[in-house]
Amino acid sequence: MKDDFTESKISCKTEVETSSAHRSQLADIAEKIIKSCDDTECYIHIDYDPIPSNATAVEIINRLKEILFPGYFNREKLDPVNLKYSMGQSVSVLFDMLSLQISNSIRHDCLRYNLECSDCGERGQKAALELLAKIPFIRKTLGTDVSATFEGDPAAKSYDEIIFSYPGIFAVMVYRVANLLYKMDIPLFPRVLTEHAHSVTGIDIHPGANIGESFVIDHGTGVVIGETTKIGNNVRIYQGVTLGALSVPPGGGEKLKGKKRHPTIEDDVTIYSGATILGGDTVIGARSVIGGNVWITESIPPDTTVIIENPKLIYR
Amino acid sequence: MKDDFTESKISCKTEVETSSAHRSQLADIAEKIIKSCDDTECYIHIDYDPIPSNATAVEIINRLKEILFPGYFNREKLDPVNLKYSMGQSVSVLFDMLSLQISNSIRHDCLRYNLECSDCGERGQKAALELLAKIPFIRKTLGTDVSATFEGDPAAKSYDEIIFSYPGIFAVMVYRVANLLYKMDIPLFPRVLTEHAHSVTGIDIHPGANIGESFVIDHGTGVVIGETTKIGNNVRIYQGVTLGALSVPPGGGEKLKGKKRHPTIEDDVTIYSGATILGGDTVIGARSVIGGNVWITESIPPDTTVIIENPKLIYR
Amino acid sequence: MKDDFTESKISCKTEVETSSAHRSQLADIAEKIIKSCDDTECYIHIDYDPIPSNATAVEIINRLKEILFPGYFNREKLDPVNLKYSMGQSVSVLFDMLSLQISNSIRHDCLRYNLECSDCGERGQKAALELLAKIPFIRKTLGTDVSATFEGDPAAKSYDEIIFSYPGIFAVMVYRVANLLYKMDIPLFPRVLTEHAHSVTGIDIHPGANIGESFVIDHGTGVVIGETTKIGNNVRIYQGVTLGALSVPPGGGEKLKGKKRHPTIEDDVTIYSGATILGGDTVIGARSVIGGNVWITESIPPDTTVIIENPKLIYR
Repeated sequence: MKDDFTESKISCKTEVETSSAHRSQLADIAEKIIKSCDDTECYIHIDYDPIPSNATAVEIINRLKEILFPGYFNREKLDPVNLKYSMGQSVSVLFDMLSLQISNSIRHDCLRYNLECSDCGERGQKAALELLAKIPFIRKTLGTDVSATFEGDPAAKSYDEIIFSYPGIFAVMVYRVANLLYKMDIPLFPRVLTEHAHSVTGIDIHPGANIGESFVIDHGTGVVIGETTKIGNNVRIYQGVTLGALSVPPGGGEKLKGKKRHPTIEDDVTIYSGATILGGDTVIGARSVIGGNVWITESIPPDTTVIIENPKLIYR
Repeated sequence: MKDDFTESKISCKTEVETSSAHRSQLADIAEKIIKSCDDTECYIHIDYDPIPSNATAVEIINRLKEILFPGYFNREKLDPVNLKYSMGQSVSVLFDMLSLQISNSIRHDCLRYNLECSDCGERGQKAALELLAKIPFIRKTLGTDVSATFEGDPAAKSYDEIIFSYPGIFAVMVYRVANLLYKMDIPLFPRVLTEHAHSVTGIDIHPGANIGESFVIDHGTGVVIGETTKIGNNVRIYQGVTLGALSVPPGGGEKLKGKKRHPTIEDDVTIYSGATILGGDTVIGARSVIGGNVWITESIPPDTTVIIENPKLIYR
Repeated sequence: MKDDFTESKISCKTEVETSSAHRSQLADIAEKIIKSCDDTECYIHIDYDPIPSNATAVEIINRLKEILFPGYFNREKLDPVNLKYSMGQSVSVLFDMLSLQISNSIRHDCLRYNLECSDCGERGQKAALELLAKIPFIRKTLGTDVSATFEGDPAAKSYDEIIFSYPGIFAVMVYRVANLLYKMDIPLFPRVLTEHAHSVTGIDIHPGANIGESFVIDHGTGVVIGETTKIGNNVRIYQGVTLGALSVPPGGGEKLKGKKRHPTIEDDVTIYSGATILGGDTVIGARSVIGGNVWITESIPPDTTVIIENPKLIYR
């Protein structure tokens, strides 16, 4: 599309002076905006420290990557000598960031809902230490996830390619950390972590879900794994799979809080793209294979392959 | 996977000098690249100011968040005293950013398509004021979205968690602002805003869509809401729902511009994950429930529950 | 939700001193974390330079945008005069960035897997030149993608809107570049590029896929196009479409590497949202239309429209 010149192009300007009329209009509007903060319909958060920003979550996740996959995501090359220092440094920085963010999250809810003081400063440090102490364990579990991903994916050229670039590994890494914080009853922060991973990968894993070893999510966009889902070992799921809750009765949200609402997936199950499995009593038996786009709300026995009966296709 | 040393590791270098041969080759290539800008098949944008970058959109959206959810996304804690100043400051910064970006968008199309001058500088400021004047109203509407989200989601621990971390609220907030700009006939910029939200959340709401109060999108990845969609109050949709157009006849894009091509969803409707509803004449009657993965191209009467007949599953 | 004050708000602090007990605990934990790097189950990457970070990929993609769509994404306005210099500058910066990242990727695998030295420094520059020499060609092909997008989309207001804001164009642009690098046998880096686009758009195109001119992806979230997919000219696909492989036999990943595992889509085919087409021998004949949510594992003759037989809906 060749570009033709037009004189007008030189003529006009966008950066015009703001007239005093506009300025005073703006002042009135600002007033109204401030006043309207008092409206009871509007959500405000005055006099509380803001909780972990997405930016903080990103920083913490980047540090976690450096510690969980040594040498993969460091800015500078690691050798056996500087590893010790670099890693030690990352760990102590991470400790400070984690303690503070965890404390802030606890404190936020404590003040916001007038709970009894739970000594959030101290609790934050304890929780951070507890999490860091589990790093070697998380690292091993992630190792099983990487191996399982490689074995099942003909397109994977190397383990490194998976660690460097596969969104499934990133989402599962963030989940495994968030899940530990969730189990320590840390409010807000675990969800902020998993929602960041959701934003980056399109994979939405609730921190409360319970997921075993050698877990693989391939491609992953659109995957949803609900809060009370239980997943065994060696489970493999593809893009667009929902492990969700049955429909919520109008206004029934409250009643269901805490109840098991999402399915149980036993060991060695494979679930193909777009399959939807719903309900807290739904159990997919070990070694079963769930075909693509299948919609399941009842339990499936072990060693079963379930596929949709090819819908009659109409050719014209 | 223990790491084994190899001598080779020390040997080679990647940062080699660029030979003069390569340098002159590069010069020729650059020449060709520049020349090829004249090819009529290629889209160029010379002599026009670039329009709002994604970076600008992000800045504007961040300011909007501070004003629409006071205290939630501010860097520093707000108290009843500094609220007034901080908010006033955000409003005037936002005014300047909005005016300029809106003017640039108008001016861009004016020059690009040789339209009559519509006094874009002035119009930008008027539009920015008009938008800001509606902030209290947008805030109330978003309040209804937050409440509705909380009531329907057993996994939601608090209203704050929803505002801090739910992608659905973010996407709907950006849409509600973009929609007002769209209704003022601002070109380009509204879509830049919603595409940023689409990128962050996987939720693709066209700024032209018409959406009522207490609107909930849960999880949301893969949701598509087309330009001429009409959605009533208290509507709830889940991930992967498409409210789209029927197939476009080859090259028929032009003819259909402006026509209603997307469905109408009446009040109190729930649409479960993966459902697809197509066509401008398709109306989903009030209080109806559309089950997951349903594919609908015709109207559904009010108070109807539509679910797919469980496809016969084949067990092996 | 009006906000009520509580004394407690002033009381507590989150930033508490770290007790020496905690400090020494932290030291022990750091020790264990470092030691555990020797575990054979854990993936480490010591003594190798880290490969292209996502940040580098973003920089390179931004430069590519400036060169492939002249004037659209430049920070400052281009005129026919400065075009020459600005473009020349971008090309040489891009050359340096590309050469280094390509060399690093080659070198990484060379050291990591003890391959024979393939003169990565030199190869990186050659590959970068080869890629840049193809820019005019890529630009023309992208031009056909933009035109086809406009013609088929009634919501598109202008070509510029598509280039500025459509995720499909962005994902296809990144793919077209990554594909050229993939064909030059560059490891790792092509996938890093496409995974960035996947993260931004929800569109997952493997760099190995083979895609013709005038290719359109509308909305796009959830689209997956596998490594050995072949797509002709004038093909149009919508969100949630999977062009994938049939199920991988347990541990069968290795055997299938390199084999054609993904479908072939001939010219002028349209595939609507949520359709899934699987298998290396599956061919969708020219000018066929595949309806939404269709699940296909066998070839479809040319000029065929395939739609799901409307599943019986149950009304209650």
